[in-house]
Amino acid sequence: MREHPFKVRVRYCETDQMGVVYHANYYLYFEETRTDLLRAAGFAYADLEKRGVFLVVTEASCRYRAGSAYDEILEIRTRVEDVGKATLRFRYEVIGPDGHARADGHTDLAAVDARKRPMRLPPEIVARLAVL
Amino acid sequence: MREHPFKVRVRYCETDQMGVVYHANYYLYFEETRTDLLRAAGFAYADLEKRGVFLVVTEASCRYRAGSAYDEILEIRTRVEDVGKATLRFRYEVIGPDGHARADGHTDLAAVDARKRPMRLPPEIVARLAVL
Amino acid sequence: MREHPFKVRVRYCETDQMGVVYHANYYLYFEETRTDLLRAAGFAYADLEKRGVFLVVTEASCRYRAGSAYDEILEIRTRVEDVGKATLRFRYEVIGPDGHARADGHTDLAAVDARKRPMRLPPEIVARLAVL
Amino acid sequence: MREHPFKVRVRYCETDQMGVVYHANYYLYFEETRTDLLRAAGFAYADLEKRGVFLVVTEASCRYRAGSAYDEILEIRTRVEDVGKATLRFRYEVIGPDGHARADGHTDLAAVDARKRPMRLPPEIVARLAVL
Repeated sequence: MREHPFKVRVRYCETDQMGVVYHANYYLYFEETRTDLLRAAGFAYADLEKRGVFLVVTEASCRYRAGSAYDEILEIRTRVEDVGKATLRFRYEVIGPDGHARADGHTDLAAVDARKRPMRLPPEIVARLAVL
Repeated sequence: MREHPFKVRVRYCETDQMGVVYHANYYLYFEETRTDLLRAAGFAYADLEKRGVFLVVTEASCRYRAGSAYDEILEIRTRVEDVGKATLRFRYEVIGPDGHARADGHTDLAAVDARKRPMRLPPEIVARLAVL
Repeated sequence: MREHPFKVRVRYCETDQMGVVYHANYYLYFEETRTDLLRAAGFAYADLEKRGVFLVVTEASCRYRAGSAYDEILEIRTRVEDVGKATLRFRYEVIGPDGHARADGHTDLAAVDARKRPMRLPPEIVARLAVL
Repeated sequence: MREHPFKVRVRYCETDQMGVVYHANYYLYFEETRTDLLRAAGFAYADLEKRGVFLVVTEASCRYRAGSAYDEILEIRTRVEDVGKATLRFRYEVIGPDGHARADGHTDLAAVDARKRPMRLPPEIVARLAVL
């Protein structure tokens, strides 16, 4: 599937006393990029929630290659790796301004309704993501 | 009113590249301490929300005296400074392990219902906080 | 002084269970906007730190007018309100996509060296900010 | 190896608009627990950094089983799963007040010096962790 690029600039608050981005904050970049990919695919995740479809993260992982500094512009390259009936897998790669990988990871998401019960993904979403 | 003490230990993620706690994170300590004070006063804020009473922050301020380091145990001393019919003011002082002030501040909170409309504080809460 | 506009999009992680941006996270927007204003004024704060000049927040305040939702684009309007020999005051206004104020606040910053001792702001920075 | 238990209480700021802990925040609990385990093993990670030994996260993963609510007390059970010459693997299990698993995960850490070059773990640390 096609890679969706998105850029974030590292905030001061995202660094820690090692002088680089705190490891868990890459998941914030993943989340923002995922939202942007879905928007590019034609639907806003915020609207999905208004319709009663919530995507919860069921698994996440990240490998850290090199630190990212405050104020750097990072490119997050995201792909929808797998589209199931009720689940999605996104894969991310974080590239620094030097062109080198800083981190890569994945998140699995599952569709649940407003009461947190598993549900199927809306078919039009599956269709849209499948052709990305 | 009486001072309520509470201790927090600085997490790594709360520091920034200056090697001290990122300024906005003191509000997290304020929030956790406020919850603890309310519990000591006899009610859990989580229960209040279940009853449809939400306390929203309407104003907050903080003065920063000295930096706080990773893994330090900070004492947050909190007082209910003012109890109105629909509002509360909390005042906080953050003391480092050296006994010196690290920061002090205040937050104003207002009661709203589940639809975010202003409402009065439940009388028993006003009563309990007034005698603190 | 002139107002500097900057836009942020609310991340999911910045909301809390009330369904709006957690109050302390507005300071993250203030910080990112401040960095952007300084860049527009001709210098990167990251470079300033490399030269051994650190701007620490000595005071901060925020008034909250209305909640901001996930995925909303907020405009942060920032002005340098005061330029002292060693201190700066920034003032911020957060405007929602509906044109209404969501929050406003200020931060005071003081220049310190790498060992956290007070120092004067570099004169060229004072000059650049004074003409904003 | 022996399991090290540690309790955290969920802060309001750690929830998101789904009403549960934001997924990335479990890594904050992992970090705080890891620090506590190291302290129980006889050394403070803060001191390790002062000696010029930094432990950087090189890989992290988490599976999410069930949501955790604001103000809940979570027990984080941590084990040192592997002690290498320059690396450590920690494994974590998060248990809710109902006794059910909320999440589990791992983090790999590697020792680096102040200039971020790989180095061996101090032998006395390897020795202490090996007997846990």
